Amino acid sequence: MRNIKLVIEYDGTAYSGWQSQDNSVGIQEIIEKAIRKTTGEKVKLIGSGRTDAKVHAKGQVANFFTNSNIPGDRFVYALNIKLPYDIQIIESEEVDLDFHSRFSAKRKRYRYVIYNGKILRPLYRNFSYHVGRTLDIEEMKKTMDYFIGEKDFESFMGRKSIVHTTVREIYDMEIIQNDEFIEIVFEGKSFLKNMIRIIVGTLVFVGIGRIKSEDVEKIIKARKRSLAGPTAPPQGLFLEKVYYD
Amino acid sequence: MRNIKLVIEYDGTAYSGWQSQDNSVGIQEIIEKAIRKTTGEKVKLIGSGRTDAKVHAKGQVANFFTNSNIPGDRFVYALNIKLPYDIQIIESEEVDLDFHSRFSAKRKRYRYVIYNGKILRPLYRNFSYHVGRTLDIEEMKKTMDYFIGEKDFESFMGRKSIVHTTVREIYDMEIIQNDEFIEIVFEGKSFLKNMIRIIVGTLVFVGIGRIKSEDVEKIIKARKRSLAGPTAPPQGLFLEKVYYD
Repeated sequence: MRNIKLVIEYDGTAYSGWQSQDNSVGIQEIIEKAIRKTTGEKVKLIGSGRTDAKVHAKGQVANFFTNSNIPGDRFVYALNIKLPYDIQIIESEEVDLDFHSRFSAKRKRYRYVIYNGKILRPLYRNFSYHVGRTLDIEEMKKTMDYFIGEKDFESFMGRKSIVHTTVREIYDMEIIQNDEFIEIVFEGKSFLKNMIRIIVGTLVFVGIGRIKSEDVEKIIKARKRSLAGPTAPPQGLFLEKVYYD
Repeated sequence: MRNIKLVIEYDGTAYSGWQSQDNSVGIQEIIEKAIRKTTGEKVKLIGSGRTDAKVHAKGQVANFFTNSNIPGDRFVYALNIKLPYDIQIIESEEVDLDFHSRFSAKRKRYRYVIYNGKILRPLYRNFSYHVGRTLDIEEMKKTMDYFIGEKDFESFMGRKSIVHTTVREIYDMEIIQNDEFIEIVFEGKSFLKNMIRIIVGTLVFVGIGRIKSEDVEKIIKARKRSLAGPTAPPQGLFLEKVYYD
């Protein structure tokens, strides 16, 4: 038995997310099928975490166990010819049997891309959130500091989510402006369901003046979803990298 | 009667190109329908030139005549709500009655994007040409100079094309490398059918050593399509800007 680690890039536009849903297929299932066609084995692919429908990844990590004798680094090529062009393996390697994509992860980096021009841009429509109104970036940067650190993020959790604790730690955040693109980078060990999208929605509300920067501390303390901003749409979100020891 | 100029951005992935084909719809027709729904008039939309199926535009220009009294700059909003998200008007204005998108054009800029990494990248698959083999960029840059100027480009014209002359002038070309992305920028008054894609295919053949840089002058002189490289795929090509006086 061998343990294979995959690094995966995907354009999430066409999928229900990492996991399959009732009526649409997930990225995990597509890759499991490619592995089955390659090794003949029905495997369970363990992802570092779920991504929502239409969310993208430049460096999702997953692992699976196999008895095949395909060298670890060859799975890139063996699987890619069986995968659609919107899901491709960018790295593969054999790892220790105790490596677990989710439990072994030390840190994850996400990037959320806002396009802040007047007109929606066709070339970026699936890869950014179009905000037509002027954003006060300085206010958003100031607000960002309230989110960094270990906090109870219950106000920023998607509904119908069951977790042991809503405490999470954001190690770092950064807001980068490139012309009309505003990118918000998040690093943390793990995140609640929709947490990044709700933080982005809240930051956008601060940027347009619908939430005051100084009220964000109260919103965090209140642990009440209804006080935070809306859930920003999925297509602006990219899982960039998962870090391991 | 008024003349309205539009600047258009589109993701060409889903379309047969600027013009409709037998079985698939063109961008021109989609915009003509949006104008019809907006003004009630059946207009002929004049484009600055055709783009092939799957080719993109950041600044295609087109114009049409109307009797409506919608202010020129309002067509952006009036048409965008009737257009799909992969085609949007980014500027509109009323222009002189003698303005003609094609005949008045002085210069056009195209950009061709090559992704030169080992693995096809899902996020760029519709917006770049994946070349997995190592490219000798210096040889490609050297070769570029053969194409600049007024030349007979018959060797670089797609088949089944009827034109008065195959002489065209390339004002300028540039090859820009950003990590694994190689961008080739073209400026000229006008281009033959598939000309940019065949020049790119030839440059890639030079980059991988299948055509010698110094043979390109002979290939141009021979006026024979079969001597040039292959037609590079459409998805890497962007019509960036059309210049007028």
